[in-house]
Amino acid sequence: MSILKIRKPDDFHLHLRQGDEMGQYARETAASFARALIMPNTLPPVIDPPGLFSYKAAIEREAPGLEALMAFKLLPNMNPLIVTEMKKAGALIGKLYPAGATTNAEDGISSYEQIRDLLSAMEEAGMVLSIHGEHPEAPVLEREISYLGELEKIIRDFPRLKIVLEHLSCRESISFIEEMPDHIAGTVTTHHLLYTLDDLMGGALKPHLFCKPVVKKEEDRAALAQAVCSGHPKLFYGSDSAPHPKNKKEFSSCSAGAFSATVALPLLAELFEREGALEQLESFTSRIGAEFYGLPLNTSSITLKKESWKVPSLIGGSVPLCAGEMMTWKVMK
Amino acid sequence: MSILKIRKPDDFHLHLRQGDEMGQYARETAASFARALIMPNTLPPVIDPPGLFSYKAAIEREAPGLEALMAFKLLPNMNPLIVTEMKKAGALIGKLYPAGATTNAEDGISSYEQIRDLLSAMEEAGMVLSIHGEHPEAPVLEREISYLGELEKIIRDFPRLKIVLEHLSCRESISFIEEMPDHIAGTVTTHHLLYTLDDLMGGALKPHLFCKPVVKKEEDRAALAQAVCSGHPKLFYGSDSAPHPKNKKEFSSCSAGAFSATVALPLLAELFEREGALEQLESFTSRIGAEFYGLPLNTSSITLKKESWKVPSLIGGSVPLCAGEMMTWKVMK
Repeated sequence: MSILKIRKPDDFHLHLRQGDEMGQYARETAASFARALIMPNTLPPVIDPPGLFSYKAAIEREAPGLEALMAFKLLPNMNPLIVTEMKKAGALIGKLYPAGATTNAEDGISSYEQIRDLLSAMEEAGMVLSIHGEHPEAPVLEREISYLGELEKIIRDFPRLKIVLEHLSCRESISFIEEMPDHIAGTVTTHHLLYTLDDLMGGALKPHLFCKPVVKKEEDRAALAQAVCSGHPKLFYGSDSAPHPKNKKEFSSCSAGAFSATVALPLLAELFEREGALEQLESFTSRIGAEFYGLPLNTSSITLKKESWKVPSLIGGSVPLCAGEMMTWKVMK
Repeated sequence: MSILKIRKPDDFHLHLRQGDEMGQYARETAASFARALIMPNTLPPVIDPPGLFSYKAAIEREAPGLEALMAFKLLPNMNPLIVTEMKKAGALIGKLYPAGATTNAEDGISSYEQIRDLLSAMEEAGMVLSIHGEHPEAPVLEREISYLGELEKIIRDFPRLKIVLEHLSCRESISFIEEMPDHIAGTVTTHHLLYTLDDLMGGALKPHLFCKPVVKKEEDRAALAQAVCSGHPKLFYGSDSAPHPKNKKEFSSCSAGAFSATVALPLLAELFEREGALEQLESFTSRIGAEFYGLPLNTSSITLKKESWKVPSLIGGSVPLCAGEMMTWKVMK
């Protein structure tokens, strides 16, 4: 197959940052996605309606054609009344970052016990809880598995709360999601579908593949690929594309985040094709997530063509995933 | 204790590189060590007497007071006659790099079957075989364990060959060394005694802690520390200090190697003190290795003092381990 036309995808996990480069990052996503769920761990974080409105407006002004779905960040002492306010303002999720788990998460949540009232209000309001599921005190490769116990308690204590476990990185998380009720789902990134610790540090160390959760073993990657390529009904796409300026990545203390927006669809098409599952790509990128969130499916479409192109070495000051490499699929304008 | 006087140490695994910066790297080692075993994976590699003589002379000219113990690199098609030549030239070891295992090892050994005659000649000549024990095809965290099977065959086929397994990084290697005869020993680096994957990538990614073999889990680190602090008779110090220019480390494709020479003794003193084992430090750094190699013990001594100092941010164009951090022990001049 040399032409692939699918319903326009959504990216249900995206970092766009702030400042001068945000516009370019947003346009990179707009080239492939109709909607993107914008993560709120900015500085300052998105925690109130004015912050949400202004960030959404700035994004959509910079990237016409991209609908910014908005999120707010859960903080330990937040008033539960914020939930209805944020819902009215259009927030799709409240995002739980365990304290210290990733970029700008120092002010996150140590235990769900800290935010029982908030979670209860979210359950009442039908607001989705989105979780960076890593236990920051655990050894780095076991943080996601270590978080599943906490997640199980949240599910038990808030049985009607819709939850998305973000950026699954290991086999155990897939099994966990499968065992849970239908209102518990997961997102999967491009890089966790394609890379392992061997890519990150088996040869030279590759800072542009460094993200949280870190990529894991081949059996984890293969299990994720197998799950999404077989049309898993509870896993959908969230890129976790997370640009950092080149000098914050190629640095003695390298920030976590893989900037994948530009190459996301070409890489996914290549993977699904290799797995003989191109017919499943559209569900993963354009249907399952929208249905989970109760959003209408996008009506526009996007066309990918088998045409080789070279990934730029720098986009908006950040080094994209696969910088300088050749892609076999290309998103047509 | 605020003053620590020990027999001057030896570093039985050191990379000094070539070119302009080599002198400064050598002097960093000379400040703490009487002798250092210089690794031969230079470009071109040390593979003959003239190469050995000129490298040794260059090092000792640049760093008076440091005795350079020399090595040569084993290549797949090497004539076994080289062994007696290199022995006569003063080489202490022949170094086996599995092909592709680390920096400048593309021309290494795929299987010991390739160099049976060479190993046989080494066994006859009493030349020590030094091994970078990683199986490069295995997943990055399992490469050392995966190599132990190959090592076992070498030991079986060459029962009198003295062997050093370099830079042990995991528990299983300690047990392996313990089960083998006394002429099979291991070296341990500073960084594998102090750091884990959590230091490397638990927070930000730290390229200056990236080395091969990569640092492992806390249980591995703790087992190594426990072994050397209890005076393990078959484990001795080899820093594997391996400077790379800052721009090759803080880079999209970061070279493997931790430049530890400058902070080696202060860090070791701090570790052994913390473990209540300061009295074992001298054996680890200044006796066990020399005895294994049949070298006289150094007669000079070195004094460390409890005095805080700040590690420079750059030495000879390379970023040292613990750059910018405070040390509690200082090597006195």
